[in-house]
Amino acid sequence: MSDAHAARRDRLLEHCSAAGMDAALITSPANVRYLTGCTPCGASLLVTRERALLALPADLPPEDNGEFVYPVDLPQQSAAADQDTAELAAMAAAADRVGELAVEEHDLTVRRYREVADRAPGVRLHDLGRTVERLRVVKDEQEIADLRIAAEIGDQALGELLESILVGRTERHLAMELERRMVDHGADRAGFPVSVGTGSHSGQADHRPTDRRVEEGDFLTVSLGAQYRGYTVRSTRTFVIGAAPAGWQVELHRLVFEAQRAAREALAPGVPCSTPDRAAREMLGEAGYREDRPRPFGHGIGLEVREAPQLGPSETGKLDNRVPVTVGPGVHLPGRGGVRIEDTLVVRPVAEGGPELLTITTKELLAL
Amino acid sequence: MSDAHAARRDRLLEHCSAAGMDAALITSPANVRYLTGCTPCGASLLVTRERALLALPADLPPEDNGEFVYPVDLPQQSAAADQDTAELAAMAAAADRVGELAVEEHDLTVRRYREVADRAPGVRLHDLGRTVERLRVVKDEQEIADLRIAAEIGDQALGELLESILVGRTERHLAMELERRMVDHGADRAGFPVSVGTGSHSGQADHRPTDRRVEEGDFLTVSLGAQYRGYTVRSTRTFVIGAAPAGWQVELHRLVFEAQRAAREALAPGVPCSTPDRAAREMLGEAGYREDRPRPFGHGIGLEVREAPQLGPSETGKLDNRVPVTVGPGVHLPGRGGVRIEDTLVVRPVAEGGPELLTITTKELLAL
Repeated sequence: MSDAHAARRDRLLEHCSAAGMDAALITSPANVRYLTGCTPCGASLLVTRERALLALPADLPPEDNGEFVYPVDLPQQSAAADQDTAELAAMAAAADRVGELAVEEHDLTVRRYREVADRAPGVRLHDLGRTVERLRVVKDEQEIADLRIAAEIGDQALGELLESILVGRTERHLAMELERRMVDHGADRAGFPVSVGTGSHSGQADHRPTDRRVEEGDFLTVSLGAQYRGYTVRSTRTFVIGAAPAGWQVELHRLVFEAQRAAREALAPGVPCSTPDRAAREMLGEAGYREDRPRPFGHGIGLEVREAPQLGPSETGKLDNRVPVTVGPGVHLPGRGGVRIEDTLVVRPVAEGGPELLTITTKELLAL
Repeated sequence: MSDAHAARRDRLLEHCSAAGMDAALITSPANVRYLTGCTPCGASLLVTRERALLALPADLPPEDNGEFVYPVDLPQQSAAADQDTAELAAMAAAADRVGELAVEEHDLTVRRYREVADRAPGVRLHDLGRTVERLRVVKDEQEIADLRIAAEIGDQALGELLESILVGRTERHLAMELERRMVDHGADRAGFPVSVGTGSHSGQADHRPTDRRVEEGDFLTVSLGAQYRGYTVRSTRTFVIGAAPAGWQVELHRLVFEAQRAAREALAPGVPCSTPDRAAREMLGEAGYREDRPRPFGHGIGLEVREAPQLGPSETGKLDNRVPVTVGPGVHLPGRGGVRIEDTLVVRPVAEGGPELLTITTKELLAL
């Protein structure tokens, strides 16, 4: 992987050079991981033309981090050291003659910014903005392979749960069970807290599991996603508990299913980022379900659970090839519950078979 | 709880006034929670003499947060709104005549800082530093009651695990099992990823669980802590697997047990923060166990797993009454494993019975 990470750092340097900057100081954890493969807690990465340097602060315990991987795969010209971000900048100014340094102002705290400015007084600081986040949008095949494995793990965990008895168990218990199963199947961890909503809680995005118990006749909505080698996917399914769903449940599920399919089928390179969301939203709107403050039905996903691009109704920009995105419309009826169905797919051209579905658990209305 | 939170905000304002500042903008999540009882994701709290205002950014999904509690208990003069931190500052400048605003430079990003400065051009920004963190050091009895419950939950989960068969199970599986059990017993969640280390992994602080399976004759080190109403404790125990521990295991366990006891017994109001660590370290040093880069054996704990004060060998400052701290020395022998024993205790004066032990699971060398 060293070569891939080095190539990413080269692309970053090209962006820096084009903007008149000599070097970049990366502090966002996902960006550090993307550029090095390493995820030490609180690490900063300095990329200059001469070398890449990772600062591992000695005072931050790994427990604050979710995971801790020592930098084993930085290429030879790189180094890792227990030192301060500010020291790193000072070193670069002295040794690599860095005069114009790009920093991630959306991530760097004011305190650390001041420390860098103080320790490296000859260096002018500029805002790198979300340059690395933009580099991360289109995934390479290795990244997509990791996402596929993450999706398989989530599908396995969900499949096992569906075979067990659900009535009488609490949302919190089911959520923890799914997290444990994902880890058992090889996940680094759950990519985000598993959401389980039953009865009136079903159909909500990101419902926090409660002590409510699953009852006969409930809708049950589960959102989960494993993280594998840093990469996370998301899927959401809604089932019904008991022998036969009620008429309104069948109808609502069919509507959300169709809306989600319309959104999925709209995914293609070159398509505006707003199109999938609009396709689903139109279908739900025609059936009378409109939101006052629409929340996007989808977004990019990868090293972060939610990353660029956003797929909201008012987004600008177009979809690119090899961008993994979530597509997850839903309807929630206050007091009654609802349906949400969400997949992670990779945008691919028609010539390659169209969007690649990663989260393959059935989207039918299973009666459990 | 409204009154308690309002009183905390009043104390913060006193600090601000004494430093010539009219208001404070709080962005650190633990600090927002301490001052409001609310934990929405990415919220900012503005405290002026006239009112307290919580900004809930509309664009941040709750999933990015661990938990999401709507601000139900802000007193009447307070308000919560979907708005930007910068808008909040601009509002305060206009309505509350804020001229000098304290911000948390150790938490605020450069980008948000610039936005505030742009939107509220008449306002001068100053660094609040870790003022709120300092207010949080000494806990009130309600906070200690929550910590006691958190400790009970962890003890229950660990107790149940010790009654089950451990040989053949992986570290990762055992860790997930403990996290699930804590949630079953009423925890908000695990306060930090449970650490399970067996065999050569035992005795390490913050070992990340692997797929290594528990074997006969292993040392098994478990670190866990439930979070309850936001408050976390930590405890670490080391057991031995099989009928009879080896001689070196008995000896090493006894040494760490005695070192940990020495550190615990050193806890008292007015005692230097370095004393407990030194008491343990001296005992380990006399037995030949010295670290090149000593990592503090303890620290404060509460809304954050690691907070002020640090209890390292070179700390300055003194312990206060009603400060919960961890005390967790250990010895790790590379390739062989080791022992770590850690408790959370509340500093109390001798007149009140001395340090209050929260994590009461036995520290004996159980053979499981």
